[in-house]
Amino acid sequence: MNGWPNPTTPPPPKNGPLPVKPFRAYFPILSWARSYDRRTLSDDLLAAVIVTIMLIPQSLAYALLAGLPPEAGLYASIAPIILYAVFGTSRALAVGPVAVVSLMTAAAIGTVAEQGSMGYAAAALTLAGLSGAILVVMGVLKLGFLANFLSHPVIAGFITASGILIATSQLGHVLGIGAGGHTLPQMIASLVRGLPQVNPVTACIGVAATAFLFWVRRGLRPLLRRMGLGARAADIATKAGPVLAVVVSTLAVRWLGLDQMGVRIVGTVPQGLPPLTLPPPSADLIGMLLVPAVLISVIGFVESVSVAQTLAAKRRQRIDPDQELIGLGAANLGAAFTGGMPVTGGFARSVVNFDAGAATAAAGAFTAVGLAVAAVALTPLIYHLPIATLAATIIVAVLSLVDLAILRRAWAYSRADFIAVAATIVVTLGVGVEAGVSAGVILSIVLHLYKSSRPHVAEVGLVPGTQHFRNILRHDVLTDPALVTLRIDESLYFANARFLEDYVADRVTPDCEVKHVVLMCSAISDIDLSALESLEAIAHRLATMGVTLHLSEVKGPVMDRLKTCDFLQQLTGRVFLSQYDAWTALHTGAEPARRVIRTG
Amino acid sequence: MNGWPNPTTPPPPKNGPLPVKPFRAYFPILSWARSYDRRTLSDDLLAAVIVTIMLIPQSLAYALLAGLPPEAGLYASIAPIILYAVFGTSRALAVGPVAVVSLMTAAAIGTVAEQGSMGYAAAALTLAGLSGAILVVMGVLKLGFLANFLSHPVIAGFITASGILIATSQLGHVLGIGAGGHTLPQMIASLVRGLPQVNPVTACIGVAATAFLFWVRRGLRPLLRRMGLGARAADIATKAGPVLAVVVSTLAVRWLGLDQMGVRIVGTVPQGLPPLTLPPPSADLIGMLLVPAVLISVIGFVESVSVAQTLAAKRRQRIDPDQELIGLGAANLGAAFTGGMPVTGGFARSVVNFDAGAATAAAGAFTAVGLAVAAVALTPLIYHLPIATLAATIIVAVLSLVDLAILRRAWAYSRADFIAVAATIVVTLGVGVEAGVSAGVILSIVLHLYKSSRPHVAEVGLVPGTQHFRNILRHDVLTDPALVTLRIDESLYFANARFLEDYVADRVTPDCEVKHVVLMCSAISDIDLSALESLEAIAHRLATMGVTLHLSEVKGPVMDRLKTCDFLQQLTGRVFLSQYDAWTALHTGAEPARRVIRTG
Repeated sequence: MNGWPNPTTPPPPKNGPLPVKPFRAYFPILSWARSYDRRTLSDDLLAAVIVTIMLIPQSLAYALLAGLPPEAGLYASIAPIILYAVFGTSRALAVGPVAVVSLMTAAAIGTVAEQGSMGYAAAALTLAGLSGAILVVMGVLKLGFLANFLSHPVIAGFITASGILIATSQLGHVLGIGAGGHTLPQMIASLVRGLPQVNPVTACIGVAATAFLFWVRRGLRPLLRRMGLGARAADIATKAGPVLAVVVSTLAVRWLGLDQMGVRIVGTVPQGLPPLTLPPPSADLIGMLLVPAVLISVIGFVESVSVAQTLAAKRRQRIDPDQELIGLGAANLGAAFTGGMPVTGGFARSVVNFDAGAATAAAGAFTAVGLAVAAVALTPLIYHLPIATLAATIIVAVLSLVDLAILRRAWAYSRADFIAVAATIVVTLGVGVEAGVSAGVILSIVLHLYKSSRPHVAEVGLVPGTQHFRNILRHDVLTDPALVTLRIDESLYFANARFLEDYVADRVTPDCEVKHVVLMCSAISDIDLSALESLEAIAHRLATMGVTLHLSEVKGPVMDRLKTCDFLQQLTGRVFLSQYDAWTALHTGAEPARRVIRTG
Repeated sequence: MNGWPNPTTPPPPKNGPLPVKPFRAYFPILSWARSYDRRTLSDDLLAAVIVTIMLIPQSLAYALLAGLPPEAGLYASIAPIILYAVFGTSRALAVGPVAVVSLMTAAAIGTVAEQGSMGYAAAALTLAGLSGAILVVMGVLKLGFLANFLSHPVIAGFITASGILIATSQLGHVLGIGAGGHTLPQMIASLVRGLPQVNPVTACIGVAATAFLFWVRRGLRPLLRRMGLGARAADIATKAGPVLAVVVSTLAVRWLGLDQMGVRIVGTVPQGLPPLTLPPPSADLIGMLLVPAVLISVIGFVESVSVAQTLAAKRRQRIDPDQELIGLGAANLGAAFTGGMPVTGGFARSVVNFDAGAATAAAGAFTAVGLAVAAVALTPLIYHLPIATLAATIIVAVLSLVDLAILRRAWAYSRADFIAVAATIVVTLGVGVEAGVSAGVILSIVLHLYKSSRPHVAEVGLVPGTQHFRNILRHDVLTDPALVTLRIDESLYFANARFLEDYVADRVTPDCEVKHVVLMCSAISDIDLSALESLEAIAHRLATMGVTLHLSEVKGPVMDRLKTCDFLQQLTGRVFLSQYDAWTALHTGAEPARRVIRTG
């Protein structure tokens, strides 16, 4: 094989028609199911057992976070996992309820129904169904690129702010007080108002569970390693910490009768397989949940794909982002029809699944079986599970999402990125999750457009003894009073076309010695119709001043496009292949440029 | 003077603080008023006489188009012109009511008040005041660049569609039937319904005036030239055509008593100087008119600045776009307080003013005096002026704005531009002017972002015998199976960062021979934080496959920024000054690339 792209992986075409996707590609399961053998089976089974143990408390906790009954979390981890195994392209991704999506679910449904009501759970189904439909449509229409408009700083800021909101929202459960609110100020006010009603027993359980889980995260792994456990086994044991907290606190409540002392418990959870449910087909509800569903879909997709890509690269496997949309969409549709809630690929569980040796998506299917068994057999055992323990599980899990250092990193790297991340965090905390994401996306697009509307333009001169041209502000170069060469470091399009007109006018109008202007186009990859008309205007205005306009180093595709119109015929000057050709043809007497600043 | 920018016109700084504007620069009048002499005075006076004659019928007609009483058009041509002369930077621009802005005014006010009511005229004042305030604020805050987001195709499409709407809206007046509607389908339906009520006398006047004015445009100039008139005199005489139509049709109505036969006439126009008016300070009204006012301001500014720049270049004068905002803002505030309507710099009248020899903005002030005299002395004479003649004036003036060829030009040049222009035309005609502009702006931004989110990436190889690297798909080049070099033809930012991740993964994952990936950065002018994190992810994923990532030809400013973070320390490979250095250091055995397509 030479340096040529593998025929099975052509580079994406830029403007041509999209290739038709073969039917088979919609069912990634077909690519591994045939070669499935006993060794793969045992790998997958082991991974499934470990992930199942981890997922039971997590599923209950995220249902709590979304304001739903605990079984919704379990149900959302059964059918969705199986559907993802059929349609998804990642072999290690574990799909189910995750923290940020559960928070967004609570925020979205909280506006349309009362928590705990029938309408609330029904709205969760509608939200999952809508989200699934949106993901599938995006996948079929190959709209996965839309997710790219969520910039990394916006995602980082959003997840950090969500982590803070989630942790704060669970503090009430940990202390045994009812607290509400969807923004940080509301939540804090509600907590402060509730402080006199703290339930001491609940607070003991909650604080102890939180402290224990923090210690498990920080201290247990080193301890187990010192006790001679292998690195992988120590990792996995650490992930089982929440199960231990659940078991101990449940037994404590049951034996000491703490629920009689005001400790809120999970209570009766229906025993059985996930029910078949139909999301209510209400047009009003769909209208109200559409925007939240789009945001949940895109946020969930972005999180999931980035985990999937990272894990796939470790085994030289590939992810097809458009097929991922279909896989996640199928999972959400599955959740909608089996009493669940919106789901996506989770980071922690996927890493555990991968580390535990999951070789194919069948591991996910076995996990689903494990959770189904739990739903049928284990639900009576969690009757006495205190809510405070679940809240502690959530707090410890989400605080690892909080990364305020992103603010410092963004500030150091670029002001535009800092503004985007800071605005996302402030708006998410102060107004809400949907406003936060929207503000971040819109602001980063606006800042990008602003930057590209004021491109870097360098007046260049000849580096003596070479054929190179460099910025006269940074280098000792030769210039010619009659010849101005401007290098524009950006593609020309409507937002910067008039900037270039102004720039050329400002440079040339007061300087009567100028006879030739050369635009050096080495960094111009595209010229749109606005920019073409600006170039025509520049050429025309320069002509009225007796100045000729030339171009140099025009790229092939740009030249192809310019040839489709009469700009080149009307150009007063010439198009030079290289800037040195332009200099040779046009310069009369060169003199060294006055150099003022040297920053490079 | 050498090739150095003139100290009085520094190139705009890219990211640095904006220079503080000296107080004097807010009053461009100071730059020419002191050197004003008798020669300049006579030039300006002559131009003023010619423009005044042209403006009288035009001002009446555009007031009619906006649904306002005729005097509003006259008033809007007096104070605004004087204020622009003080604050504006163009010496030839003639400010007053123009067709497109009058149409937008009618559309905006039509939604908040009944045409002909007191509230309607008051709303026009509020709209002008709002528009003036917005322009001044934009000028002081130097937000003129916002206008750049109106791409040329969107403006061209919008003006074409507006011309069609305006001409159609006046057909009812020409035929003597009452017709209404704000969209093309509504207008046509209304015309068809009104056809049985056509007033034959009005239709005769209207059709005759229209035919005459068309002939003046097409046939009069050549005729006058053949009769021996100079080119400039013939041009100016042609512009006086509408005055002749006004005089003849007014006399016809008066002498034949046609107004008794159902011909609608202008009627009583108040005699006197513009009144002092106060736009009603109603918060409700301001809220409803804010968005239309923004659109009117931006559209008016864009039209006006492009005329001003073209005329200024002819005399090597300069326009300061931010000061233009202040000049136009002052003009609109003037209109608001003197019984006028929204105004901007008009194309036709400015060209006439320029051609007639206007040397300074004083010509505009003399025009204002001429129109004030008309308002005081001539208004009784236009009592019998038929509305049909004014409608004919408008139709003939605006049909020159209609340029459907823009569709063909855009189609030939680029599909994205075609989509933007077609959408603007269709939405403007079918939904309305505000929706049309908004759709065009949003669509062109979306298309631009889409294009830049899928940048052109070329895999390059060495052109034998040179140090140049070119696209392996276009050229016979040498490649190395272990070394993949990708040249990305776009700055890296959030929208294309993940595209690059996918591209590199698709290229490298299935090809186990690859040991080194070089990203050639010659066309990359910026790397934002998202792209930086994508580069880190790419480096990390390549490292897990045993592949090293290198960079080459990184630009100075980009390198400066990368040095502020630890990416370069963590980079598994090296940063090469030139791509040839990278090749020399990394290649092992080169073989000719398999070449498939040759398009360049």
